[in-house]
Amino acid sequence: MKVMRSLAVLAVVLLWAAGCATQQTHVQRYGSVIGVKEDKLDYYKTLHAEPWQGVLDNLKACHIRNYSIYLKKMDDGKTYLFSYFEYTGHDFDADMKKMADDETVKKWWKETDPCQFPLTNRKQGEWWASMEEVFHSD
Amino acid sequence: MKVMRSLAVLAVVLLWAAGCATQQTHVQRYGSVIGVKEDKLDYYKTLHAEPWQGVLDNLKACHIRNYSIYLKKMDDGKTYLFSYFEYTGHDFDADMKKMADDETVKKWWKETDPCQFPLTNRKQGEWWASMEEVFHSD
Repeated sequence: MKVMRSLAVLAVVLLWAAGCATQQTHVQRYGSVIGVKEDKLDYYKTLHAEPWQGVLDNLKACHIRNYSIYLKKMDDGKTYLFSYFEYTGHDFDADMKKMADDETVKKWWKETDPCQFPLTNRKQGEWWASMEEVFHSD
Repeated sequence: MKVMRSLAVLAVVLLWAAGCATQQTHVQRYGSVIGVKEDKLDYYKTLHAEPWQGVLDNLKACHIRNYSIYLKKMDDGKTYLFSYFEYTGHDFDADMKKMADDETVKKWWKETDPCQFPLTNRKQGEWWASMEEVFHSD
C-alpha cells in the first residue's frame, strides 16, 4: 500500500508538472493588419460574431490560440482590422498550408476576403500585412 | 502513515487545482492604436528594446500582462503603433490611475508621448485610441 500511495503522489506531481509545462509552451506572437470595406463592414462583423465551428476547430488544429481581431476607423477615413494571435506549433508554414487546404476555411475565406482590402506595402504572398513587434512584456 | 500520505495526495491535488485556477484568471483584452512620428521612430524603438525595469514592474503591479506593441507604415504614408494587452485586475480605472501616478511611468511617458500623435477620433480622455474587438477565439 505504501508503494501504491507513493506512486499515486508521484503520478499527481507528474501530472501537475505536465500541466504547467503545457501551459508554458513556446509561443510565437503575430500582429497583422488589413482594410475592411465600408459597405461590407456589417457583414464582416456578423460573420465574426458567430464564427463557424469548423473554422474555430481548424485554428486549434493549426496551433493558433488567443486570436483577437480589432477594428478601428483611422484618420484617412478608412476602417482597418488588426489581428493578434499566438502560434504554439513547430512549423508555421506547414500549419498555414494545412489551414489554407481546409474546405471549411476555404468557404470562410470566400466570404471574408471580398470584405477586405489589403495594404499596398504588404510582403509578397501576404493578404493580411504582418506588423513589426517593437515591445513585449509577459 | 496512511492518513499522512492521503493528506499529502490531497495537498498536491489542491495545489494543482489552485495553480490551474490562478492561470485561468478572468482576463479583459484591450487593443489600441496611435501614430508614431517618423523622426522619433528610432528613439521610440530604442526605448522599447530595453524598457525601464520600473515601467515593467508597474505594468505587473497594475495587473497588465501579455503586452505587445506592433508597428506598421500604413497606406497614408504614416506609421502607427498597435497595442494588445490583457488586464487581470478588478478595477481598471483605479489601476490606470495608479499607473499614471507612478513617478517612473511619468518619466517614461515624458519620453514616449512626444514620439506619438494620437488619432483625431479618439474618445475623450484617451491618448491611445481604443479599438473595437470584433472576434476572439481562446
